[in-house]
Amino acid sequence: MILTSTGGGHAGPLSAYTLDQLRERRSSKWREYPPDVLPVWVAEMDTPLAEPIAAALAEAIRQGDTGYAATGGLPEAFAGFAARRFGWRPDPAAMRLVPDVMAGIVEVLHLVTEPGDRVVVNTPAYPPYFYWLPRIGRPIVENPLVLTPAGYRLDLAALERDFAAGASAFLLCNPHNPTGLVFGEDDLLAVAGLAGRYGVRVVSDEIHAPLVYPGARHVPFGSLDATAGARSITLASASKAWNLAGLKAALAVPGAEAHADVARIAPEVADGAGLLGVIASEVAFASGEPWLEELLADLAANRALLGELLAERLPEAGYQPPQATYLAWLDLRALGLGDDPADWLRRRGDVALYPGPKFGAPGRGFARFNFATSPGRVADAVGRMAASLAGRPRAGAGGTPVRP
Amino acid sequence: MILTSTGGGHAGPLSAYTLDQLRERRSSKWREYPPDVLPVWVAEMDTPLAEPIAAALAEAIRQGDTGYAATGGLPEAFAGFAARRFGWRPDPAAMRLVPDVMAGIVEVLHLVTEPGDRVVVNTPAYPPYFYWLPRIGRPIVENPLVLTPAGYRLDLAALERDFAAGASAFLLCNPHNPTGLVFGEDDLLAVAGLAGRYGVRVVSDEIHAPLVYPGARHVPFGSLDATAGARSITLASASKAWNLAGLKAALAVPGAEAHADVARIAPEVADGAGLLGVIASEVAFASGEPWLEELLADLAANRALLGELLAERLPEAGYQPPQATYLAWLDLRALGLGDDPADWLRRRGDVALYPGPKFGAPGRGFARFNFATSPGRVADAVGRMAASLAGRPRAGAGGTPVRP
Ligand SMILES: Cc1ncc(COP(=O)(O)O)c(C=O)c1O
Ligand SMILES: Cc1ncc(COP(=O)(O)O)c(C=O)c1O
Repeated sequence: MILTSTGGGHAGPLSAYTLDQLRERRSSKWREYPPDVLPVWVAEMDTPLAEPIAAALAEAIRQGDTGYAATGGLPEAFAGFAARRFGWRPDPAAMRLVPDVMAGIVEVLHLVTEPGDRVVVNTPAYPPYFYWLPRIGRPIVENPLVLTPAGYRLDLAALERDFAAGASAFLLCNPHNPTGLVFGEDDLLAVAGLAGRYGVRVVSDEIHAPLVYPGARHVPFGSLDATAGARSITLASASKAWNLAGLKAALAVPGAEAHADVARIAPEVADGAGLLGVIASEVAFASGEPWLEELLADLAANRALLGELLAERLPEAGYQPPQATYLAWLDLRALGLGDDPADWLRRRGDVALYPGPKFGAPGRGFARFNFATSPGRVADAVGRMAASLAGRPRAGAGGTPVRP
Repeated sequence: MILTSTGGGHAGPLSAYTLDQLRERRSSKWREYPPDVLPVWVAEMDTPLAEPIAAALAEAIRQGDTGYAATGGLPEAFAGFAARRFGWRPDPAAMRLVPDVMAGIVEVLHLVTEPGDRVVVNTPAYPPYFYWLPRIGRPIVENPLVLTPAGYRLDLAALERDFAAGASAFLLCNPHNPTGLVFGEDDLLAVAGLAGRYGVRVVSDEIHAPLVYPGARHVPFGSLDATAGARSITLASASKAWNLAGLKAALAVPGAEAHADVARIAPEVADGAGLLGVIASEVAFASGEPWLEELLADLAANRALLGELLAERLPEAGYQPPQATYLAWLDLRALGLGDDPADWLRRRGDVALYPGPKFGAPGRGFARFNFATSPGRVADAVGRMAASLAGRPRAGAGGTPVRP
């Protein structure tokens, strides 16, 4: 029997499994820490698979269909999703299968920049960027987002300085992990203008694009009416919104003037993709929207719940509800737990958040909380955080936490 | 219902599916060419999954267990398999999860050699080596295997010259794709001696090690009683023997003196592995041997059948039954079809072999035939090859085929 996302009353996909069921999972989220630690760190979700995805995977297993990945109908399925969801019509014939978004970024930067070329990244930033870009000889120029009372925003003047100083590419992350910021069309057009002026190639990581809440609107960089949009290359994937990160499939999607670049991705690269990832992603984009809507309703409720719980139990924590993603970027500087509050929380609270400093310098004193779990477990996690703070070093008493 | 490998009388795993069932697969083997072409090219098998693997995957899908891969019990499972099968006892704690064998080779060469360092490879060679090694700045030194009436063998004198000329690493492929050669212990000890003398690191691609036929014995390079064995790093995977290439998991297995090197593989690398690949591979190594024995019996029968069919229908083809692998490296030079007989066969015979020239210079006039399919389809493929040759250019009439 396949568990359905709506089994058991009104519960949505985030409440379908018990903690005991989740602890049987083999994935990184559930295996990294001992069983007494509640994990809310890596970007996996505690949902069942959407039914049509589970059915397609079960069928592939029955067919023994586990050889090398072919691209199949994935580009067309993504094109349909992009058209319905974002009014964007990239050419499926120009898309290329890549193993995952991170590998796709590596491939694209390898093709559109040269060794030694600098790549601008907004910080805080998805931690593996800090490993892979230097690894391929593309040093990162950190461009911090600015924290305002109304949330994070892009510092266009600083971006222009970085572009003018000779960066070759801008690795945009939109919607942004970890802040949940959805860049507005005005900002994106301004970025495109600067990129055009300074000859900077934009590579747009849009892995979180399906996960935008009401009130915000995702504008694909490739859809902009601007030369830099046409020259941009987007990385798209179903892996965050349908929880397929372990199945390994993503697409490199060129703007109208970047087809030739993406066509140079070597066929050997697609051998690294997962066939079950391709099959699942195609189903997700083609017929996974009803499930996605259910998920987004659950997530929106958790997003609000987390705010209420933090206000009540941990009022010193700064929390801006994200406009997209199931990730909350918590400002825990006022707790006096030092640079890495997640370390304290895990050791003293048995709750694993993602350590802020891994997202770069602006992550000091922050931690990332993944709320793609049941409301009960969101409450449990906040409770553990609050409980761990009995006997904590006083706020303002200096950056170094007391070692427990 | 999961198809069992023994369903329908005495048929083994290679005969479980009909051609129509296979044509529904989404994998590269079945999607690369139009449906009128019989594919015997890429190294996928036409088998169902081994039952315990199918069951474990079905369970993961029920659990929604599709997030990022954790290494889990895969190293222990491989260690058990290596001990039972090869009498080799590598340390599971020192192994690292990598996305696949090719990615593992890239990681290991990245760590144990420097940009510009030359890497010796025996040709004919697995085609993606020719893309990935130059891609990471490690030029290939081609060291041809020598074709003798008794089969291929290593040219130790030439290997010594290549080592002495300053190569940094030797990427050994054992058992060897595409020739099916299983290197004997004497040869391996001689290689180890040379590697020790010239300070060459050995990276051993042993992806085909479970697929050795009676009469040959796989000796892991890491099991040799030699310094170069202890300093070697092996890439191991269940992907060929249990047909899991699309699920994405392999292991980097260090010899006793290479633990520190393998420990430097960045944790970010394992994010590229597939969780279902880890789950399936662990089951394969831990409890997939009964199925492997059935498979090897089927394969051994096909290996003999192919020889009989070729002798009868295509006597000009040179065929040395491989000691391991389900790949037959056919010497088609006497057919007068030029450098790439596979091109002719596909266009005129509707049968897709893997083009020999992709394996390097010694592949001219050769093609690789994958016999991991039913005996009926092996016969069909040979029949198509033979039929395509009506009206072919005369043998010995020069290297260029008549364009059809
Ligand atoms: C912004 C961003 N980019 C890339 C990734 C990684 O995606 P993949 O697993 O497809 O490499 C993530 C994962 O959470 C992410 O948040
Ligand atoms: C010798 C050899 N090495 C590596 C590979 C590729 O393995 P993977 O798919 O794990 O990268 C193959 C695939 O057939 C192979 O024959």
